[in-house]
Amino acid sequence: MTITLENIRIVDFSIMMQGPHATQMMADMGAEVIKIERPRLPAAGLPDVRYGKNGNYGRDPEDSVFMSATYLAHNRNKKSIAVDLKQEKGREIIRRLLKDADVVYQNFRPGVMTRLGFDYAGCCKINPSIIYASASGWGKDGPYINKPGQDLLAQVMGGFAAVNAGADGHPMGIGFSISDLMGALYGAFGVMGALYHRQRTGEGQEVETNLLNGTIAALSEMALHYLNTGIEPRRDTPMHACPFLPTPYGIYKTRDGYITISSCHMLSQLSEVLEIPNLAEDPRFDSDQNRDKNRVQMEKIIEEALSRKTTGEWLELMEKEDLWVAPVRSLSEVFSDPQVLHNGMVETVDSPVGPLKMPGIPYKLSKTPAKIRSAPPTLGQHTDEILKSIGYSDKEIGNLKREDVV
Amino acid sequence: MTITLENIRIVDFSIMMQGPHATQMMADMGAEVIKIERPRLPAAGLPDVRYGKNGNYGRDPEDSVFMSATYLAHNRNKKSIAVDLKQEKGREIIRRLLKDADVVYQNFRPGVMTRLGFDYAGCCKINPSIIYASASGWGKDGPYINKPGQDLLAQVMGGFAAVNAGADGHPMGIGFSISDLMGALYGAFGVMGALYHRQRTGEGQEVETNLLNGTIAALSEMALHYLNTGIEPRRDTPMHACPFLPTPYGIYKTRDGYITISSCHMLSQLSEVLEIPNLAEDPRFDSDQNRDKNRVQMEKIIEEALSRKTTGEWLELMEKEDLWVAPVRSLSEVFSDPQVLHNGMVETVDSPVGPLKMPGIPYKLSKTPAKIRSAPPTLGQHTDEILKSIGYSDKEIGNLKREDVV
Repeated sequence: MTITLENIRIVDFSIMMQGPHATQMMADMGAEVIKIERPRLPAAGLPDVRYGKNGNYGRDPEDSVFMSATYLAHNRNKKSIAVDLKQEKGREIIRRLLKDADVVYQNFRPGVMTRLGFDYAGCCKINPSIIYASASGWGKDGPYINKPGQDLLAQVMGGFAAVNAGADGHPMGIGFSISDLMGALYGAFGVMGALYHRQRTGEGQEVETNLLNGTIAALSEMALHYLNTGIEPRRDTPMHACPFLPTPYGIYKTRDGYITISSCHMLSQLSEVLEIPNLAEDPRFDSDQNRDKNRVQMEKIIEEALSRKTTGEWLELMEKEDLWVAPVRSLSEVFSDPQVLHNGMVETVDSPVGPLKMPGIPYKLSKTPAKIRSAPPTLGQHTDEILKSIGYSDKEIGNLKREDVV
Repeated sequence: MTITLENIRIVDFSIMMQGPHATQMMADMGAEVIKIERPRLPAAGLPDVRYGKNGNYGRDPEDSVFMSATYLAHNRNKKSIAVDLKQEKGREIIRRLLKDADVVYQNFRPGVMTRLGFDYAGCCKINPSIIYASASGWGKDGPYINKPGQDLLAQVMGGFAAVNAGADGHPMGIGFSISDLMGALYGAFGVMGALYHRQRTGEGQEVETNLLNGTIAALSEMALHYLNTGIEPRRDTPMHACPFLPTPYGIYKTRDGYITISSCHMLSQLSEVLEIPNLAEDPRFDSDQNRDKNRVQMEKIIEEALSRKTTGEWLELMEKEDLWVAPVRSLSEVFSDPQVLHNGMVETVDSPVGPLKMPGIPYKLSKTPAKIRSAPPTLGQHTDEILKSIGYSDKEIGNLKREDVV
């Protein structure tokens, strides 16, 4: 056996990112993830997607550039069936699928699945040992039950924008969908726990996660620090990377660009390379408290010294002294970096519109490795195959198509 | 049975954050995580930690403020044994522990565990079905094998600082240890897969992850977009939260503070509430392409309108129209938010120095819920208990203590 989640079937109602990223992680591990789509849903499939230097994504000109990158990034290794859930015959297909399923994953707003008859109670009637995962914006109940749940809203409500604020105090969203990601990762971890428990005992259960909880859990040490000291994080300067670590810890200007210095524990060696008086012996900076208090002064001294050479020159001098430093990479540099390529973090899969590049799998299992096996499916690509697997005949499938059920 | 990872024993050599956050996630699920510490390691335990409004963390004045918050945030629900691994009798303790263990987790630099005899091959000799997880900075081999691996360095090398750059082009570290977190979460997910596989087949294996891979995987849709278009993300203005979503999508100034508007799909309704001419019909903004091109102009118009009322006034008006908006929360507001409290995301545990507050568990399992059962251990708190559990007598334990092995 070489597949981790062999014979695990996941019925995936999830949309956008929080749910799909979680189920993609399980698809990477070999689970059969069946994505339930609505027939003729716009912006759901690959066929009309064009990609190229012009960034012209999307099924048609009305679709946003981003929608389809989102779809493509979170649905590899999955199968797609297009079913009209508003028709009884469509819901019958889902009921048959659930009989043989192990996991349901959904991230509709609270209430939607109940109306369809596929909430946890409904699914349990069909399959008592089902694992039922719900991912929402704020939680399955509570005061925010009716608030729209979305990545940026969760970032600001959960504290990310405060922690990531600029030196001028302007709160900043983190430049990608990090709250969606946190909800996905903690949710996937919860489902893995539930799968492990079911493997041992046969018992299924409900798993719940949401963007808000994921955001707060991700603050981890920041949250713990605040909760026990009452001190709000604050970034004094644009270069400073973390409010609770003493300078130098951040991204500094050089003569021709930027350099990252993560060497708050090596101040004497840094001073030597910079050819400036030893900062560690300067009374303004001789303790963590003083370095914190006089951060802006110290950063000014360091950037003045750094302005004398290029990033490349500094990196060479500093790495020789084992200082913790790095350049700042653009994405083009990231994705041509020799270690990134060595680690297999760029993969290419065939898709109906040509080769599609995507980031690789970040963890490696030596005996049952996760793998990228297929591109994100086109809308309803596996409808026939899936219907046959749950006992529909060719004739029945033809009828379902004529009736616009699939 | 109410514990997900009942009877799972994890021998945890990990330090700082990437490893400890991962093993804490499994400790929350009920695994017995035994933290291997060196005797008299500074900054490792609670006893000398003071916390209060002065932010004075640390075992002694030389410790940084941050070290101990890091320890406290990532080691709840664990046991601690202090063992001198340089002594043969110390290594013998580890060998006995490994006999009954299920998982080893370590994040030393490549090579350290080999020298101790506890690399995967060494551990397999003692326990052939062991799951062996290694977390490093850049990978277990490859060109960066000797580079120091650390959160900020991984953030800049993996693209986070580029994606999070300010509008002035200054790359910015994300204000907390997000690369450590990504390595931890993907690593924990990998180990859960390995545990599931072992439960089915009896077979153990190696699991590998690192900060760089976690960072790149987390870029997900950003990475996919770049890899297939060659377009670097770029934040035009401080308010703009994501380079690939059209305005309005970000954090804007109001008369008395900030408001988050995530309503790029509701431009007409927004214009109405703002009492300005319909932006969706303005030829400068009538397509996604134009809204992207003329972003700065549109943001100026919106902020001008927003300056007429307070955040509270705008929220009331906009929520009435179902616009996707939110205030920007400080951490004090986050941790007094009614939904955050409703979700159980602030917990308090007793510790030797008094009650310790920490963020709660972000996912909920209905039948085998993860729980915070105990505060991070003091250094070597469970040494006697653990030694007894692997067969050492009181007399032998006394001898080990006299010889400074434990």
